[in-house]
Amino acid sequence: MATTRAAPTSVVALRFDGATLWAIDQTELPWHERELELKTAEDVAAAIRRLAIRGAPLIGVAGAYGVALELARDPSAKALERARNILRDARPTAVNLTTAVDRVYQKASSAAGDRLAAALDEAHKIQAEEEAASDAIAAHGADLLVAARRILTHCNTGALAAPGRGTALAVVAEKAKRGTLDGVLATESRPLLQGARLTTYELSRLNIPHELIVDSAAAGLIAGGAVDAVIVGCDRVAANGDVANKVGTYGLALAAQAASIPFVVAGPTSTIDPNTPDGARITIEERDPDEVGSLAGQRITLEQTPCRNPAFDVTPAVLVSALVTERGLIRAPDAKALAAHLAATAT
Amino acid sequence: MATTRAAPTSVVALRFDGATLWAIDQTELPWHERELELKTAEDVAAAIRRLAIRGAPLIGVAGAYGVALELARDPSAKALERARNILRDARPTAVNLTTAVDRVYQKASSAAGDRLAAALDEAHKIQAEEEAASDAIAAHGADLLVAARRILTHCNTGALAAPGRGTALAVVAEKAKRGTLDGVLATESRPLLQGARLTTYELSRLNIPHELIVDSAAAGLIAGGAVDAVIVGCDRVAANGDVANKVGTYGLALAAQAASIPFVVAGPTSTIDPNTPDGARITIEERDPDEVGSLAGQRITLEQTPCRNPAFDVTPAVLVSALVTERGLIRAPDAKALAAHLAATAT
Repeated sequence: MATTRAAPTSVVALRFDGATLWAIDQTELPWHERELELKTAEDVAAAIRRLAIRGAPLIGVAGAYGVALELARDPSAKALERARNILRDARPTAVNLTTAVDRVYQKASSAAGDRLAAALDEAHKIQAEEEAASDAIAAHGADLLVAARRILTHCNTGALAAPGRGTALAVVAEKAKRGTLDGVLATESRPLLQGARLTTYELSRLNIPHELIVDSAAAGLIAGGAVDAVIVGCDRVAANGDVANKVGTYGLALAAQAASIPFVVAGPTSTIDPNTPDGARITIEERDPDEVGSLAGQRITLEQTPCRNPAFDVTPAVLVSALVTERGLIRAPDAKALAAHLAATAT
Repeated sequence: MATTRAAPTSVVALRFDGATLWAIDQTELPWHERELELKTAEDVAAAIRRLAIRGAPLIGVAGAYGVALELARDPSAKALERARNILRDARPTAVNLTTAVDRVYQKASSAAGDRLAAALDEAHKIQAEEEAASDAIAAHGADLLVAARRILTHCNTGALAAPGRGTALAVVAEKAKRGTLDGVLATESRPLLQGARLTTYELSRLNIPHELIVDSAAAGLIAGGAVDAVIVGCDRVAANGDVANKVGTYGLALAAQAASIPFVVAGPTSTIDPNTPDGARITIEERDPDEVGSLAGQRITLEQTPCRNPAFDVTPAVLVSALVTERGLIRAPDAKALAAHLAATAT
């Protein structure tokens, strides 16, 4: 696999300067590194809906600051209510957004004094937790996959998808740092090409050797022994261990199982949703059909062709070798193991 | 699923007018219906290499006429040799091209008199055989899949891929004609989008309700019960029943197996290659990496991103519910069943 040569640098997807939330517009990457200036809850929700800000952990943190931004303009209880309503439903599949927005809402609504200060304090706390989680996930994942020198990953799960270094891609980066990585196969991740645009951009900045493939090439390459493990992120993990993640994840899990290589899911404990019993109960977001009918702004089929665009799929827990969280591994995740994990971390 | 309303019409991908081979330039569909004027073996080989002519059975017939075209210009034994060399390696994975070119070569080289007449006669014969095979495949497949009202198919396997009505898509069209079809899910088939450009074009002309999806959405939709069967074509079937077909086919077979729905492969007997013992021995064409990194001249990743572009993958025979040929079905294909099929048809 080819190597790039620039000095390794990470990327800062989201930063709060005390008054404004600045977010790299991920729809413009890798061509333009532009920051969006977000001043209201609606600004943040709109950026999340159009995937300028994306990645389950990152939209959680963005949502948290979004509530604070709204209180900075209007510190009333009504504004707080409005901010929550605007933000928690911006995208339905990831649990992190709802969780983070609700946490900030609770702190602000129960604050004795300054609602804004309480909201900001909680948003900072969530961000710090996610950053620490990212480092811990990277370390646990790199320990687990020490022998897997060639990794396949899907969509984007790096510093553009989560505060800090990311989730699955943070594991990859940590392996590179430790010298246990030979190279990465990255799927392009149609329809919106997060792999082709964002993962290759991050891997290139990190000087990690990689090759890009179309999504449907993954299964055959896995069968042919091209990689030693598959690692992906997650948008919601149900209580029984079923994983909702970027569309295409389930197919990778089937291929990994058939080839007897590990299929590993990385995400913070905040991605586990004890209130969703199993994958069948996870709402799968269906996005604009035009995302399928067009590619990079160009129509790729007849104008009248009807398209279907599920943004996620569900991988049954039985196909997951291990779930890597900031608090360690859950091997062969099931309802019992996840309940034990959540009980141990609810301190 | 949505319906289109124009009168159903099929398409003629290839026609020989006595002096020139005319081929619809499939790289320009669905936007332009332009015919290429092919006068030499090299014209035909170039059109095959750049996928202006594609589909295993169709490139076989094109190759057959390509030999005749060369003999029309120069009827020498040397020209015949040259034509064979130019054409048989234009694409390596499909067996039909080699077989057809060799058949015409044999007839022409052993002709007592006019090499050109012998070559043309054989080319016409191959085309007529493939057209008859297409009708028979359509009928056998529609019989087999009578209860499958919703079908998922991959790439393009219709009248643009094979003389007559095609292979897998001919089965779909026959089911529509018989009133046993509710709708089709068509995969876009990255990198060159034969599904998005060609299959939707054919389905639209045939008034068959359909929806387009990205390739990686197929597995999740199959798991969710969106279709009753998967049917695909094939570029080469090894003697043990392993199937080389458009990249992504293997992943569909895994998903169909996991969902316990039929995974059916349609192709003429000419696609079965008794000289290739198993899938591991099939040469998988690796095409230009730029097909992955770009779309219609537009870059979708960083300029320096290395890409890998296998055009096919191999589906193990054990995942194939049935192989539909013009001579009937081979259920649960294996070496014994295929040998019996070939023995019965070698008359």
